[in-house]
Amino acid sequence: MTESVTISLDAMGGDHGPDVVAPAALAALARNPALRLILVGQAEPVRQALQRHGGQESERLWVHPASEVVAMDEPPSQALRTKKDSSMRVSIQLVKQGEADASISAGNTGALMATARYVLKTLPGIDRPAIMSTIPTKGGYAHMLDLGANVDCTAEHLFQFAVMGSVCAEAIDGVAQPRVGLLNIGEEEIKGNDQVKRACQMLTDSPLNYVGYVEGDGIFKGLADVVVCDGFVGNVALKSSEGVAGLIAHYLRAEFQRNLFTRLAGLIALPVLRSLRGRIDPRQYNGASLLGLRGIVLKSHGGADAFAFGRATETAVLEVRKGVPRMIDQRLESLLAAKESP
Amino acid sequence: MTESVTISLDAMGGDHGPDVVAPAALAALARNPALRLILVGQAEPVRQALQRHGGQESERLWVHPASEVVAMDEPPSQALRTKKDSSMRVSIQLVKQGEADASISAGNTGALMATARYVLKTLPGIDRPAIMSTIPTKGGYAHMLDLGANVDCTAEHLFQFAVMGSVCAEAIDGVAQPRVGLLNIGEEEIKGNDQVKRACQMLTDSPLNYVGYVEGDGIFKGLADVVVCDGFVGNVALKSSEGVAGLIAHYLRAEFQRNLFTRLAGLIALPVLRSLRGRIDPRQYNGASLLGLRGIVLKSHGGADAFAFGRATETAVLEVRKGVPRMIDQRLESLLAAKESP
Repeated sequence: MTESVTISLDAMGGDHGPDVVAPAALAALARNPALRLILVGQAEPVRQALQRHGGQESERLWVHPASEVVAMDEPPSQALRTKKDSSMRVSIQLVKQGEADASISAGNTGALMATARYVLKTLPGIDRPAIMSTIPTKGGYAHMLDLGANVDCTAEHLFQFAVMGSVCAEAIDGVAQPRVGLLNIGEEEIKGNDQVKRACQMLTDSPLNYVGYVEGDGIFKGLADVVVCDGFVGNVALKSSEGVAGLIAHYLRAEFQRNLFTRLAGLIALPVLRSLRGRIDPRQYNGASLLGLRGIVLKSHGGADAFAFGRATETAVLEVRKGVPRMIDQRLESLLAAKESP
Repeated sequence: MTESVTISLDAMGGDHGPDVVAPAALAALARNPALRLILVGQAEPVRQALQRHGGQESERLWVHPASEVVAMDEPPSQALRTKKDSSMRVSIQLVKQGEADASISAGNTGALMATARYVLKTLPGIDRPAIMSTIPTKGGYAHMLDLGANVDCTAEHLFQFAVMGSVCAEAIDGVAQPRVGLLNIGEEEIKGNDQVKRACQMLTDSPLNYVGYVEGDGIFKGLADVVVCDGFVGNVALKSSEGVAGLIAHYLRAEFQRNLFTRLAGLIALPVLRSLRGRIDPRQYNGASLLGLRGIVLKSHGGADAFAFGRATETAVLEVRKGVPRMIDQRLESLLAAKESP
């Protein structure tokens, strides 16, 4: 029998709160019989949402009260200082206390990172946690980190990101030794800044499966399974990519609506266009991992629907089953031991 | 009568050398009667290419000899030190000597930047030249800089890029006071690094039409006419965008080739898809400006065809007509004067 996994969900987070989290929870429980979920938040609205979506509490699904809600635009330091009974914080505390194996929130990213770091603490050897997400590539998909938690990174930080990303990709994809690439720019002489060059040296000397520099377009060609960069660059790359995809979708719509003939062509091409949309649907890649903590925390997109929230839940289950934080800890320790041995 | 504009072309640069530059020159001369072009390179192959494409030297088109060629992968410092008679360098020297109003090369970007900087020197008040290019947006297009010449930038550098970008966008688009945005990431508390925050303050205090921070996706929504960032971030954003566009094209092809029905749908949708391709065709945005120099130099894409090379020529003509380097110089001077006056 598969051992059960318990995940606590911040039921109040995101743009839609319990009205997305409750149906997502019910669907996830139906899909995975080994799953148990805790809905953390204001008991009344959460129970009502559960009812509205045809569900109720059971031994696999229960509500855990938390009186406060962190606003989507609330400064992280303020949330941390003043909202000690927020659904976001209580959900992470359940992980700390061993009552949940992982926590997922669709709330304010900055507050989530600050709270997770404060409550769970970072792993030994990790200076800064990072945010990792999955993006589509020609061959399938890749994992990219950091995506915005750390704007200025040293070579050591980038190296730690590489270790964390490699371990987590291994857990999520079930692939040994994922290919790790460092995001860099192309011009020869002016290639990269000092941090990237030094991180390259550290990765070359490590037992990780390091494949060298990857340029912006190389991410989407699938040249690496894990792409490492600082949070400023990663955030801009990710959002630029979303922007271009949105622009192309906008052009496609405009072109197909130009006249009667193109509208007809659009109708005929509709199944194909729908299938294309499915391929690049960001919902299926929802669920960013906060890595480097002594516990598993995932961020669901603020605007995620129940399908997307469910995807984040599935990723969380994989990370729990493999014990990602423990794996990161062991990997770092063995890398350091290898360095110190003669 | 319109005053004539003389542009020197590095006929040996790029992946295709004179076989792209010669036909591009002939087409550009046919389009613009006020244009005169100098083809710089090894006289024999250049004249042969000219003949192959049905052209010949005239009072509007002549060959200027240069015995050496900078390789696409040659280190910039080596090109600068050892190839003093390269087509790239001689073409820029013609600008320095006043025999040409601008120079265009499809050669090695690093070598082009190093050579242009060495031969022409930077404008007073400009620490580092930057590379600016045009990208499509929902509303039309935007200019973005720096795209890879400067990996580490101070707030002062970003400010100078903003001034250069604003002036050049004014010249190319014929729009007064283009909207200038600073590329940044979204999370509130952790928003931006120190350089970006300080540059934001400097721009807010300046008479430029500064519209604030723009995120990666905001570039393509057309939230600014000029997007300013350091060269590492700009290069990654640009190449990531190209990568995503390539990925979507790859998916579209795959989806339309899936079976007989989808192939048929693809045939019917073909004119629409072609028209879409035209909208995001990178060839029409070819021609990156090297800004901050005492002269006009443009970089054409290494793989550019004659159409794309021609687009770079048209941009060069606009920059010459407006006198972009002089405008940048005057703008900087007046900004500094405004700061010093009580």
